Amino acid sequence: MSQTEQITLYANPVPAFSHRVLIALEDAKAKYTLYNFDIWRERPEWFNSEVNPLGKIPAITYDGPETSPERPSAESVKLSESLALVEFVADIFPESGLLPADPVVRARARMINIYFDTRFFPVFWDFFLEGKPVDLLGALDTVQRLLPVTGFAVGAWSIADVGIAPFLVRVAMLLEHDIGKQSEEDGKKMLIALHEPRFTRIMKYIEDAKEWPSFKATYDEADAVAQCKVFPLLQRNV
Amino acid sequence: MSQTEQITLYANPVPAFSHRVLIALEDAKAKYTLYNFDIWRERPEWFNSEVNPLGKIPAITYDGPETSPERPSAESVKLSESLALVEFVADIFPESGLLPADPVVRARARMINIYFDTRFFPVFWDFFLEGKPVDLLGALDTVQRLLPVTGFAVGAWSIADVGIAPFLVRVAMLLEHDIGKQSEEDGKKMLIALHEPRFTRIMKYIEDAKEWPSFKATYDEADAVAQCKVFPLLQRNV
Repeated sequence: MSQTEQITLYANPVPAFSHRVLIALEDAKAKYTLYNFDIWRERPEWFNSEVNPLGKIPAITYDGPETSPERPSAESVKLSESLALVEFVADIFPESGLLPADPVVRARARMINIYFDTRFFPVFWDFFLEGKPVDLLGALDTVQRLLPVTGFAVGAWSIADVGIAPFLVRVAMLLEHDIGKQSEEDGKKMLIALHEPRFTRIMKYIEDAKEWPSFKATYDEADAVAQCKVFPLLQRNV
Repeated sequence: MSQTEQITLYANPVPAFSHRVLIALEDAKAKYTLYNFDIWRERPEWFNSEVNPLGKIPAITYDGPETSPERPSAESVKLSESLALVEFVADIFPESGLLPADPVVRARARMINIYFDTRFFPVFWDFFLEGKPVDLLGALDTVQRLLPVTGFAVGAWSIADVGIAPFLVRVAMLLEHDIGKQSEEDGKKMLIALHEPRFTRIMKYIEDAKEWPSFKATYDEADAVAQCKVFPLLQRNV
């Protein structure tokens, strides 16, 4: 396949939502321009007015002329919402194999992603970004029970793994390096629990995901730790 | 197309989430069994153990032998999460036309649905089911700005309308009939605002959606009002 349309991804290296789209583009072997920026500190006016009126990343521009990312063309298509972007990449690059061929498996993959965003993510957010005493282990256990005994979320690597792996890998990383607004004590408790036999399955999943080529190509744990350590929303005393 | 697989939908007539799947099945002219039950008052043990371990409706069983809904077969596929179910119906009944053919339009439809579930629904919930002073009008305005000047969410009726119409129709209905946990005063203010010229577009959308055949076939406003008036989560004094 020869891709003629330009794709520009507006993202930030820290959030898992941005990482999802980056992984999908790598799985698709797409040609794309990555524009990483710190939307919290330096939200450029042109981003809201010309890329995403909702002011959120990740967002992409698709098709239209090649331009500097800071001068998006009015002719390109503007899309956002990470799961919609992952599905879009899977749709325009069917050879990525991201979309399971069997409609039942496809439905399971979507079910996992939707469950994750509506049920798991709020707990992730409350724990690491608000320091609230929420049941992170319970949430991880529910995700774990959605996983098959071995392999990825629906067997082969799919949109479901692109959806959940960036978060699950970050859960382990943040706990391991004591990053986030949770108390040190709560973080330590979670970390110890995560290494107990009851979480063997999810830890194996995390390890497998980190070895998947598109994930490996887009995630360096040392970099991630360094970036998260200075990421405003993850600081304890602000 | 001749459908050979059985489909059983576990639902409740009140929640918009259940309504989504019902509408999609009607758009698809699918053959299905509808099992309406009051999961809040009489959660049957078999539902959690044999249909949806997460204990949520809507859920479906697909394929496997025809059985009584209360005796789901171990051989059928079990699926849940309303947007995943809507996509599943669109996938197995391509002639439903629910999935836009153009990947860009498809992405827009998904973007609207995801935006809606992650941003609009929490406001809907807080307003009507918690009585919290949230910015319902702001949320409606954002949805309104996602709509094209005329027509449905992405032009022709699609998964996006199946996603948002059941909620938007209920917003107008609940306000009109003063149902929900919001204060009478707040409800009245919202109702008045909704009839101001700035909301003409969303009111026209609501009116159009109510006339769409699959919506019309699955929604009777008098019934909906009667059911919502006794729906436990919408009662002011409990």
